[in-house]
Amino acid sequence: MSSRLQQFALYGAGIALLFNPWCLQLVSALGVSLLAYVSTVTLIPRVGDAFIRRGFSGKDMNKAEKKIIPETMGVVCALVYFICMIVFIPFLFYKYLVPNGVKPTSEVGWMNRERAIASHFPHNHLVEYLAALLSILSISLLGILDDLFDIRWRHKFFLPAIAAIPLLVVYYVDCDKTYVSVPTVLRPFLSRSIVDLGVLYYMYMAAVAIFCPNSINIIAGINGVEAGQSLVLAIMVCLNDVLFLVRPGTTTDAIHLHLLSLYLLLPLVAVTLGLLKYNWWPSRVFVGDTYCYFAGMVLAVAGILGHFSKTLLLFFLPQIFNFVLSIPQLFGLVPCPRHRLPRFNPETGLLQNSYVDFTDTPNLPKKTKLSILLFERLRLIKVEYEPKTGRILRCTNFTIINFLLAHLGTMREDHLTMVVMALQFGVGVFALFFRHVLAPIAYRNDNL
Amino acid sequence: MSSRLQQFALYGAGIALLFNPWCLQLVSALGVSLLAYVSTVTLIPRVGDAFIRRGFSGKDMNKAEKKIIPETMGVVCALVYFICMIVFIPFLFYKYLVPNGVKPTSEVGWMNRERAIASHFPHNHLVEYLAALLSILSISLLGILDDLFDIRWRHKFFLPAIAAIPLLVVYYVDCDKTYVSVPTVLRPFLSRSIVDLGVLYYMYMAAVAIFCPNSINIIAGINGVEAGQSLVLAIMVCLNDVLFLVRPGTTTDAIHLHLLSLYLLLPLVAVTLGLLKYNWWPSRVFVGDTYCYFAGMVLAVAGILGHFSKTLLLFFLPQIFNFVLSIPQLFGLVPCPRHRLPRFNPETGLLQNSYVDFTDTPNLPKKTKLSILLFERLRLIKVEYEPKTGRILRCTNFTIINFLLAHLGTMREDHLTMVVMALQFGVGVFALFFRHVLAPIAYRNDNL
Repeated sequence: MSSRLQQFALYGAGIALLFNPWCLQLVSALGVSLLAYVSTVTLIPRVGDAFIRRGFSGKDMNKAEKKIIPETMGVVCALVYFICMIVFIPFLFYKYLVPNGVKPTSEVGWMNRERAIASHFPHNHLVEYLAALLSILSISLLGILDDLFDIRWRHKFFLPAIAAIPLLVVYYVDCDKTYVSVPTVLRPFLSRSIVDLGVLYYMYMAAVAIFCPNSINIIAGINGVEAGQSLVLAIMVCLNDVLFLVRPGTTTDAIHLHLLSLYLLLPLVAVTLGLLKYNWWPSRVFVGDTYCYFAGMVLAVAGILGHFSKTLLLFFLPQIFNFVLSIPQLFGLVPCPRHRLPRFNPETGLLQNSYVDFTDTPNLPKKTKLSILLFERLRLIKVEYEPKTGRILRCTNFTIINFLLAHLGTMREDHLTMVVMALQFGVGVFALFFRHVLAPIAYRNDNL
Repeated sequence: MSSRLQQFALYGAGIALLFNPWCLQLVSALGVSLLAYVSTVTLIPRVGDAFIRRGFSGKDMNKAEKKIIPETMGVVCALVYFICMIVFIPFLFYKYLVPNGVKPTSEVGWMNRERAIASHFPHNHLVEYLAALLSILSISLLGILDDLFDIRWRHKFFLPAIAAIPLLVVYYVDCDKTYVSVPTVLRPFLSRSIVDLGVLYYMYMAAVAIFCPNSINIIAGINGVEAGQSLVLAIMVCLNDVLFLVRPGTTTDAIHLHLLSLYLLLPLVAVTLGLLKYNWWPSRVFVGDTYCYFAGMVLAVAGILGHFSKTLLLFFLPQIFNFVLSIPQLFGLVPCPRHRLPRFNPETGLLQNSYVDFTDTPNLPKKTKLSILLFERLRLIKVEYEPKTGRILRCTNFTIINFLLAHLGTMREDHLTMVVMALQFGVGVFALFFRHVLAPIAYRNDNL
């Protein structure tokens, strides 16, 4: 089947699922996701040239031939995602939107009808959905501006928190749950079953909204790794939702929340798959900061609105590990080069560690020396010493990618991406086990 | 007072108004608007160079010295507007957000508290507000992409309709008022007091959402005219809201709707004033399509959510006139050059009409000839004939700006902008008179 025909078939299938005769929202969501996938696949190759003309392009450093390819394709993903989510609104609320009965013929009749509709419609569900879209759209805009103007770190750090305000307000008026349950074994000591964190809980959620987009953005630099990790993350979080949906005893409220999370995540999986088709090694397009912010925010929003922001961080353990590992370089204890991506060896065609070089600085500051020795002791970096004097010559960069290369040896770029994805998958399985097997044991009343 | 000190004073005043001790939302809205103004004024000069570096720049054609100046400053306006509107949310819902009583200590207690808050909070108001922001943000994104990539006409025409979907869904669930009142004198003939337009009314509102952003975008090309017309439009629509708020007998629902409209429009007035400081003749920055789309959409959203989308079109009469006047050129009856802006005369320093030239095409198509003769008969364009043969040599471009120049003669660029603004003001006064003096007479029961 020609690729054109295939696309038409996929569009047709997507529209058929969207308008499914059973009016099932989850089936419509699958339809929307299919449309999102095929739109992304269709659009990306068409806009590439326009992007390059506008300066959205980059050199692929990890190739023998350093080609210029279009960047910031996350814009296409975010845009397609956003349009699909908007188009989905009437399908999501279909059963409340079908007009009932004949229309009144007097103004008073209309006023009564208005009240009847308003009291019948689940405004709080629409509020959640719109707040989610608003946060995702504003973070995507931030991503575009960052790709355009290279916004300074201190300016862009807090903007996700502003983007999260609608979410937090919605969280407040929807439930304002700010407590955490105490594990059963600890309850006798604390003499209570829950601990209220109050405003700290909102600060925690704002921190999640800041962390998720930025953390995906710092595991970057090799073909497909941004989209690859996001894909695995999104699928694992979807599985988490499905496990809640299928297990007996889940309350109606919890079912609603996990469905909402699925509606947000399925189109993300779809656009990411479409993007990976072109971004997988050897990449024909780059994703840009826009994609990382966008994907991270969708995950954060799903976690916050789905009321599983604590579980969410379990899935983000590789990103947390990478962040902690990066601290010495992010906070200036160890010099941080502009890029910390691994080094391409043109002879073997494989990737190897990139290093921070100290050959020209014989006297390292104490903080640098201590950080390096500590992280080496923890086996997180590799350090090379001058054989005679024992002076530090160079050490690997403080990233999870260099950590993997240091322990697993040089490898081809796509294999490295697969290792990161496999790690993400393993962590996801652990998180699911923790949440669905261990947690119900540790907490007598599992908060469904 | 130095400009720096002045800015600090304005920031201080804005914050003081925002946190006003009476918790009045309208005062907070004024505070937010003040912050929006001073942020716009501070930001625009700082980002100019970065914009030029990224290719957001244009040549000012109506000057002797054709300087390159930064374009697309609407991005700054839209971004400042958006951040201010997000920050405003907690202040808007302050009285519902203040926590009442001590927090519960059991999970059941929390669940009851959750229900109490949810039943107490005006979800429908938050839905309206979020849908408004979503539509405005998505149209701004469309503007940015248009400024970046020059999106094709047929692609960008329908996108505002997608951006309007959240608005229309909210309109549906909030009131679904799709009827128009019949003027008292016509009621005996139609034997009814209202006529239900049903789905046509939604198509009308989608058309408003498509028309407003695009119509501001086509009265363009001279310094300050895009921001100038938007400023007058926004102020006149604000006056319309204020007249509804102060007149006796307005229902609580109507007060809410017109306040919402004010909350949306006041920050627009503010960012536009800030923009005009740099965009006024002789311009130091250009506004870009982003600004036109953004400003037009804020007005459309205010009209739709404020339930005065019909009145809104009265204020847009100059834009409607310009659109009708442009039809022969937009639809290819008369050749349409890339730009239809007036021509700068370097000798006088004044602007004069720009023309469509026919000297090389002796045999005009019949449709072109007819259009030109009709529009000349209506005194909308000026035509020059060859004295001997009577053949059409050239005619002025079909825009309101050329129409004004043809009738009022050549003038300086800023005076022409002022004429457009004065016309917009006159139309606004007429619209207010029509809505607040004539309409209550024509409709016995004025739908407040």
